[in-house]
Amino acid sequence: MAARLCKPSFQSVVAFGQWAGIFLSFITSSSMNMLIFRPKALRDFVEEMFACFGIPAEDCRLAADVLAYSDEHGIDSHGVARLITYYDLLKSGRINIHPHLKIVREKGSVATMDGDNGLGLILGPKCNEIAMDKAEIHGSGWVSVCNTNHYGAAGYYPVKALERDLIGLSLTNTTKGVVPFGGREKMLGTNPIAIAFPSGQEPPMVIDMATSAVAYGKVEIAERQKKSVPLGWCLDKGGNPTIDPLAMIHGGALLPLGSDAAGSGHKGYCLAAMVDVLSAVLSGANWGPFAVPFAIRSESQPAFQVGKGIGHFFGAWDITGFQDLGVFKESMDAWIRVMRETPPLEGTQAVLIPGDPERVAYAVRMKDGIPLDDLVWESIRSISIETGIPLPSPQ
Amino acid sequence: MAARLCKPSFQSVVAFGQWAGIFLSFITSSSMNMLIFRPKALRDFVEEMFACFGIPAEDCRLAADVLAYSDEHGIDSHGVARLITYYDLLKSGRINIHPHLKIVREKGSVATMDGDNGLGLILGPKCNEIAMDKAEIHGSGWVSVCNTNHYGAAGYYPVKALERDLIGLSLTNTTKGVVPFGGREKMLGTNPIAIAFPSGQEPPMVIDMATSAVAYGKVEIAERQKKSVPLGWCLDKGGNPTIDPLAMIHGGALLPLGSDAAGSGHKGYCLAAMVDVLSAVLSGANWGPFAVPFAIRSESQPAFQVGKGIGHFFGAWDITGFQDLGVFKESMDAWIRVMRETPPLEGTQAVLIPGDPERVAYAVRMKDGIPLDDLVWESIRSISIETGIPLPSPQ
Repeated sequence: MAARLCKPSFQSVVAFGQWAGIFLSFITSSSMNMLIFRPKALRDFVEEMFACFGIPAEDCRLAADVLAYSDEHGIDSHGVARLITYYDLLKSGRINIHPHLKIVREKGSVATMDGDNGLGLILGPKCNEIAMDKAEIHGSGWVSVCNTNHYGAAGYYPVKALERDLIGLSLTNTTKGVVPFGGREKMLGTNPIAIAFPSGQEPPMVIDMATSAVAYGKVEIAERQKKSVPLGWCLDKGGNPTIDPLAMIHGGALLPLGSDAAGSGHKGYCLAAMVDVLSAVLSGANWGPFAVPFAIRSESQPAFQVGKGIGHFFGAWDITGFQDLGVFKESMDAWIRVMRETPPLEGTQAVLIPGDPERVAYAVRMKDGIPLDDLVWESIRSISIETGIPLPSPQ
Repeated sequence: MAARLCKPSFQSVVAFGQWAGIFLSFITSSSMNMLIFRPKALRDFVEEMFACFGIPAEDCRLAADVLAYSDEHGIDSHGVARLITYYDLLKSGRINIHPHLKIVREKGSVATMDGDNGLGLILGPKCNEIAMDKAEIHGSGWVSVCNTNHYGAAGYYPVKALERDLIGLSLTNTTKGVVPFGGREKMLGTNPIAIAFPSGQEPPMVIDMATSAVAYGKVEIAERQKKSVPLGWCLDKGGNPTIDPLAMIHGGALLPLGSDAAGSGHKGYCLAAMVDVLSAVLSGANWGPFAVPFAIRSESQPAFQVGKGIGHFFGAWDITGFQDLGVFKESMDAWIRVMRETPPLEGTQAVLIPGDPERVAYAVRMKDGIPLDDLVWESIRSISIETGIPLPSPQ
């Protein structure tokens, strides 16, 4: 294997923007040695990995598509970096390979689905599809899902809705990692909110945000780089604010968006609660601190369960039920242009539109390839050794 | 008039919680002299004020009910404190007294309404009702509204949905006051998100939050009390972070929730954008910096308009389309109890549930009365003098 080891200038939507750099500084160069892969090579490996457990080919493509969305858009924490965890789950028999996804309840524009403990990467796209189908019939569509597992990046789903000129929304609860405002114990997940709006000439507006101050991945990156984190991200295990990423990782917790009272940390808590209720309480999944951990290697299971699996929530609105589609898209274009013209803060290049960083990363990566760090590469190698699937060839 | 002037211990959900005090410290004693009123006396005065412009009695009751919600729940910024502004708008002829609220487009669970430039306090409840009716028929209901004006506290609307065992949601765009992340000019409003979930034995979960770091009212209060504000709330007119409330009030701006890059201020911007698009772009109202100012005394009008009035967005989900109602309510009760049991941060009494502060204020005020500060009382007196409506009698 002629691996091309290099120090690339490749970009990753992960690092710590500063006032001066805004979103664009989230796209930072990595200082680690990285191998570079063509997107197709990674997709193929992922598909083969799922296929070797007997998952139907079409479902394997779906799962690979969800993970590829993250790798191709610079969301490194949610792509092949997590493949080893899905692999472990499948190998341990904790995932139903042939789930029977079924409707539990339904009424016009809404439904609850039971994922029968299948892979979230496969159930997610199917339930999202049902929400979109409902939107085209009833003007809007809403699907709450129980008995499911980690579904990849939340932003994947509303972006699918854009292909059908719908406004798309997706929420999911996740393993506990965040304190409720005023508490010192992890009780909620990073519970993301993702929503996307179609546009005309301009690129679409795509929002995908954890409701915690930051995603856990940012703390991990700081730890790997031996850097401190800003005050307001983390508590240590004693409930004290800390700038030491290790103090968070070892029994500490993330803070909700807003962090403290001065920053309106109760608002991040409110948003996380909203996501938890719509995804898990409504569907009958495990909510709050009972959400089933994603990784079986590093996490302990909650003492008991209050529902089935974790929960997702998918939604879509048919724009034509509200407004002429052409007029809406023109207005979105105007909104985007007006917002870009905002005089920037000193030291800042420009005001960005939600989705810009991922779009920039996509353009770079589809041309130049996707970088994987040593840790991720090692996990892929171990899967290859165990399964016999040929390693993807670096560029 | 036998006014009872006193220094009450009455409570207002306005002040600055600190880490130690969490939500409960938002309920602070006022240091100003205040007159105390029975809720009914204020409702009657408000109704008569609207009636004297020839607004139908039923609509006057509706408008009074919206304002009373704020006064009775301790949201002092959105109750009779704003009556003078509605009065000014009506007196200036800028509001249509007999609007013809009409459906612009409709498709199953969704619709756009044109408010015909009526009062938001009257249009809001009617459009919210339509969303709830749709939810009962189609499983969910969504109404985007253009050509409307300020609709009071966002939280009023989802709380109405609780009476029908629905999950309620309301959004509205507002006059520009907040910078987009990375910008130094006001381009968005404080664009609130309100959502409420029914419960069983426990009180319901009611979320009502501006998507800015704080609501403008908190900056005004700091200014009146000659106090500084935390860094992260405001920029001055040069785009520099400031702790001086006056520097924000005179040409400065609020920051989005999260404030800066370290605090993930791009997330508050994303939420404000989402609210703006659903309320105003979707309905055909004025969006972003074009949103029509609420107060005619203090604000200049935008140079031109891109739509009609401002925009609201109402939504409701029928829980029974997803889940057995009894099961959902029991799960909500369990969620609430589990969250309350979170070990609190040192110096904090307990983790609260969204809606707790307003509920506590309601219990106190319905028993002991509603305090009005000098400024608000003066504005009520001026309305009384001009209209001849008898002043409400303090307790």
